[in-house]
Amino acid sequence: MPMDGKSQRRTLNTSHSPIPVILRGKWFGDPKNITNFSVRDGTAPSGAHTEPWTFVVVKDPDTKHQIREIIEEEEEINYLKRMGPRWVTDLRKFRTNWIKEYLDTAPVLILVFKQVHGFAANGKKKIHYYNEISVSIACGILLAALQNAGLVTVTTTPLNCGSRLRVLLGRPANEKLLMLLPVGYPSEDATVPDLTRKPLDQIMVTV
Amino acid sequence: MPMDGKSQRRTLNTSHSPIPVILRGKWFGDPKNITNFSVRDGTAPSGAHTEPWTFVVVKDPDTKHQIREIIEEEEEINYLKRMGPRWVTDLRKFRTNWIKEYLDTAPVLILVFKQVHGFAANGKKKIHYYNEISVSIACGILLAALQNAGLVTVTTTPLNCGSRLRVLLGRPANEKLLMLLPVGYPSEDATVPDLTRKPLDQIMVTV
Repeated sequence: MPMDGKSQRRTLNTSHSPIPVILRGKWFGDPKNITNFSVRDGTAPSGAHTEPWTFVVVKDPDTKHQIREIIEEEEEINYLKRMGPRWVTDLRKFRTNWIKEYLDTAPVLILVFKQVHGFAANGKKKIHYYNEISVSIACGILLAALQNAGLVTVTTTPLNCGSRLRVLLGRPANEKLLMLLPVGYPSEDATVPDLTRKPLDQIMVTV
Repeated sequence: MPMDGKSQRRTLNTSHSPIPVILRGKWFGDPKNITNFSVRDGTAPSGAHTEPWTFVVVKDPDTKHQIREIIEEEEEINYLKRMGPRWVTDLRKFRTNWIKEYLDTAPVLILVFKQVHGFAANGKKKIHYYNEISVSIACGILLAALQNAGLVTVTTTPLNCGSRLRVLLGRPANEKLLMLLPVGYPSEDATVPDLTRKPLDQIMVTV
């Protein structure tokens, strides 16, 4: 496929177009619909088969709004004070900022937690080998599945928000937020940024 | 889908069944076929759009064999000396060991490198935000695409082999091996281990 930015799977940049608000049918009614993709039907692989993930699917408007408040508060500090000019410059081309309207308007937020360790039957810590890699792979499979279902999302990593969101959602201390995926259908006037991609010979070598 | 181990996407455990040796048609003839899936058509997302990945697609039998020799040598040390009894015990149920015949017999090995940083036009280091997460997501999308193509693979992380494999393949020092995917078609008598998975309420929470 040519590098014309029209390829099928594409995360929407929500600063250009808020994540769509259309709630279509009952697709989200059955919670199994989401994890079936990634973790069950998908049977995502994980280090030593530890399945070190928790998917928190948020549909409740009040909770979504509380999530938005936490993220906007922390992201404003990231942009204005915490992260420094280089980070801000590197992000400029995406025209992102700390206003995250899509956290209210997206019908579903999926907060993906990695379990940095588990617990054995005797209560002792169980090692979760490669937990971050495993959970990220599961997210990649989930992205592919969401695209197949005609949904759109954007991969976000709310910076310095992990603990507060974990506490808000009542998750235990062995879980760390890895990613937040707002999920919905594209709005009528959705656009995506016109980014070019590296040429093939810079990303692939054949031996 | 019920937890009967018959779900569609499944990484084959190569200790039970060597990765298939059938070379079917010319699917691997055009190198674009592989990256088209993951990186081009897939347009995998990455932190600040840095595309921090290199996919090394190995088809040359001699190179595959050299890769096998390095991995078997290091993995034997992992099993016998380096990793200790807990690691060995945690892996026992998968019946893996340091003999990796599939590295010779799989028609293609994809060695996925993360670029821990890049270079700006002026030669200075360019930060690759979230490079490991980004490359793992791309691998997840690649796994989904390989399944769609009727291929099988297994996610492997050759432990303590990264530098030697990087040097063998002539990759620069800013690249670190993240994963090795042997890719092929299932052999006639392929089996997969009968692993159970966590129940849904242990991996998903709805709010």
